Amino acid sequence: MIEGEVIGDPMVEITGVSEIQNGKPDTITFLGNLKYRKYLNETSASAVITNDPSFIDDKNGIVVQNPTWAIGKILDFFYPQLTPTKTIHESAIIHPEANLGKNVTIEAGVVIEAGANIDDDVWIGANTVIGRTANIGSESKLHANVTVYRNVEIGARAIIHSGAVIGSDGFGFTTIKGQNIKISHTGNVIIGDDVEIGACTSIDRGTIGNTVIENNVKLDNQIQIAHNVKIGESCLIAAGARIAGSSEIGHHSRMGGMSGVVDSVKVGPHSTIASTTAVTKSLPGNQMYAGNPAREIREQHKRDAVFTEISRIKKRLDQLQNQVKTD
Amino acid sequence: MIEGEVIGDPMVEITGVSEIQNGKPDTITFLGNLKYRKYLNETSASAVITNDPSFIDDKNGIVVQNPTWAIGKILDFFYPQLTPTKTIHESAIIHPEANLGKNVTIEAGVVIEAGANIDDDVWIGANTVIGRTANIGSESKLHANVTVYRNVEIGARAIIHSGAVIGSDGFGFTTIKGQNIKISHTGNVIIGDDVEIGACTSIDRGTIGNTVIENNVKLDNQIQIAHNVKIGESCLIAAGARIAGSSEIGHHSRMGGMSGVVDSVKVGPHSTIASTTAVTKSLPGNQMYAGNPAREIREQHKRDAVFTEISRIKKRLDQLQNQVKTD
Amino acid sequence: MIEGEVIGDPMVEITGVSEIQNGKPDTITFLGNLKYRKYLNETSASAVITNDPSFIDDKNGIVVQNPTWAIGKILDFFYPQLTPTKTIHESAIIHPEANLGKNVTIEAGVVIEAGANIDDDVWIGANTVIGRTANIGSESKLHANVTVYRNVEIGARAIIHSGAVIGSDGFGFTTIKGQNIKISHTGNVIIGDDVEIGACTSIDRGTIGNTVIENNVKLDNQIQIAHNVKIGESCLIAAGARIAGSSEIGHHSRMGGMSGVVDSVKVGPHSTIASTTAVTKSLPGNQMYAGNPAREIREQHKRDAVFTEISRIKKRLDQLQNQVKTD
Repeated sequence: MIEGEVIGDPMVEITGVSEIQNGKPDTITFLGNLKYRKYLNETSASAVITNDPSFIDDKNGIVVQNPTWAIGKILDFFYPQLTPTKTIHESAIIHPEANLGKNVTIEAGVVIEAGANIDDDVWIGANTVIGRTANIGSESKLHANVTVYRNVEIGARAIIHSGAVIGSDGFGFTTIKGQNIKISHTGNVIIGDDVEIGACTSIDRGTIGNTVIENNVKLDNQIQIAHNVKIGESCLIAAGARIAGSSEIGHHSRMGGMSGVVDSVKVGPHSTIASTTAVTKSLPGNQMYAGNPAREIREQHKRDAVFTEISRIKKRLDQLQNQVKTD
Repeated sequence: MIEGEVIGDPMVEITGVSEIQNGKPDTITFLGNLKYRKYLNETSASAVITNDPSFIDDKNGIVVQNPTWAIGKILDFFYPQLTPTKTIHESAIIHPEANLGKNVTIEAGVVIEAGANIDDDVWIGANTVIGRTANIGSESKLHANVTVYRNVEIGARAIIHSGAVIGSDGFGFTTIKGQNIKISHTGNVIIGDDVEIGACTSIDRGTIGNTVIENNVKLDNQIQIAHNVKIGESCLIAAGARIAGSSEIGHHSRMGGMSGVVDSVKVGPHSTIASTTAVTKSLPGNQMYAGNPAREIREQHKRDAVFTEISRIKKRLDQLQNQVKTD
Repeated sequence: MIEGEVIGDPMVEITGVSEIQNGKPDTITFLGNLKYRKYLNETSASAVITNDPSFIDDKNGIVVQNPTWAIGKILDFFYPQLTPTKTIHESAIIHPEANLGKNVTIEAGVVIEAGANIDDDVWIGANTVIGRTANIGSESKLHANVTVYRNVEIGARAIIHSGAVIGSDGFGFTTIKGQNIKISHTGNVIIGDDVEIGACTSIDRGTIGNTVIENNVKLDNQIQIAHNVKIGESCLIAAGARIAGSSEIGHHSRMGGMSGVVDSVKVGPHSTIASTTAVTKSLPGNQMYAGNPAREIREQHKRDAVFTEISRIKKRLDQLQNQVKTD
């Protein structure tokens, strides 16, 4: 199933999966993060998946290239996902001008407004609201209490968690004589295929053009994506990150937790932005960045070294002062 | 319509609005942020709104004082907002002791509890919940999945986005012998007129007195306003900002994204707090602040300069040491 | 009622509670935070609760050990909480295979899925969704628009505010040839007794094992708890804090607003983590920590002192240079 090389007893019976630090007999575990290597010897799990045969010693195990992928496969085998009922709950309010595909699952209390299109095999959780003329691509799963505003376009196989809000107005005001006046947000949110959006994450619609989330982007919980932002393909963005208006994150970039990007800058592809980093200007990409303001990470480490440098400088100055005195 | 001065061909036909960097023929665009000036020559838009006639060159354009305001007017002309149905959906649950004004629009799945008052022309989105004896002022629009707790008072023309929570208990506990004991929150949230509240923003009720948001305040997404906070008139607060208990933000202040204010301090009026700034004590106002802890911004820049200073000091010390040696 | 020592007139009539800075005649107030001591002389409240008799002077007052606890008791007396109706609203959708205890209150639009168990005296607010086989302990109160995912176990006397999401999938992906592939989250969220969870707070389920929130933990608004995190008994965590995957916070710890903890570290018990602190490695506990990265707070203060140190060093260097010149 995971195309790995078995080490030790190939007939050991496995009935489930456990964590390495809480390993249980008759289960299989995995070593996906070397921080957990210390638990390898003491785990009670009956087998371990790893990418290094030397870790297994006298245990039973399977060696694969990517242990995290392998354990995912095994989790899916032992703990299959809930299966959709493919029914529409009688309490759901579906506008007669909405369009529903085949085999959709619509749970209790869902509201689908006029002109919305729900593709085949979509599953919409309880009390979720789909706005006018929004589109939900096939095989997408929206959990309970999600809000999708009017027009928003979501691709196939999306997973959207509870409390997420997609398509709210961006923060656009102009101030005239001390009064803040709202600028209408007539743009949209366009989300590609295979995108996951975490709980309580909010994505604003564009002012004129669109906010765009490309294919295979994964957003954690409590992320804020402002109006007209573009997130390139396959980006991974961790919880609490915030991207301000009109900024672009290049494809295959990663942003750590609580990191942020100011408005109207471009972060190049394959960037890694450490957690709590604040990006304040455009960055070329293909590098790791840290700090507030963000710098290439070795440059940032040099700045951090100032704090130890300063005590060394003080000592040298003391010595020199004594030397000058005694001269 | 926008009372500007036309430059170039006054008869050019405009059918919509486009972004300057994605300008489309037969549309009008605008230059609201000088970062985008580089797109001015290459845009395919047929006309441009700006506040400086020298930017227009050989293009068609309109010169106005505030291009952002002007494009807002034009957006409203080309892309009118949805019009409310002024109907009450049969699935809404409205307590018989609630009071509804004239011409209200109540969407599917809305719950309005006993004693709540909904003024004329209010529009409440699907699955939103209005608590007991809460008040929603006239012409307000609450989007889907908003929660308004008991008693909360919201003024006229509010716009409240999905996932916002108004009136939850503040974070008030006392610890006795290691046990955290809850203090009841008997105060309220009082929100003035013309306030906008972003998606997933939370505003706690006061412990004894009230949490107060004055007229014309605009709050972005994912903002946290704690118990007994006061936000003065016309403040603009960007996404992810957090204001801790009993603090006050003076009128016409601006807070950048991910900035924060500790509890029980006062920030004076007309303050500008840069993004990621952490305010840890009261500030007089009428200034710009940055850093953690927050300082007047030029003072903060001096501190940041320490990092370059240190390498200069090292060089001077090296030279001096050599000089002393050779003496 | 609060077992304190009365000072001044014991017969003064009290009809309510007011804030010390907005004291009203015929009310009682309290001094819980010394920042507010300046208001003590000018307050118009008729009596004051304090822990120091010398504060009361010629006023009427009550001296108790813990004024915050005492005012909580008095608030409960003057402003009793809403009483549950102990009825099930006809619009609630309760799956026939769900189990409801005695005296439960289920408000309008609530959805309770198959196999869920709702213990005695639970109160569930409007439009809240309880997933399949989830458990809600006795006397818990879930406000409106809460989402509880499948299986999640919540203990007795929980208070959960609107917009909170409990049991969403953690952020677990593996990247193969540039494609992010989801790892199923088959673990659970286990929440003890007497836990309070703030508005818009999200708690992810474990990947294999569980995310655990122990008894008496109090979480403020907009907190993010990632997969497999453990929060020890009686922790107090302020708004906007984020705890990344598999990290542990020891019992009786406190985390300030906007603080964060990276993945896979352990923070010892009785830790105090200042607001905006970023914990990047394991910490022993029983101390106060601050800074990014977090350090024991006095060590952090020493680092902050570098900025003033540097100007002193420059002066010494100038003097020494002059001395060497003149020698």
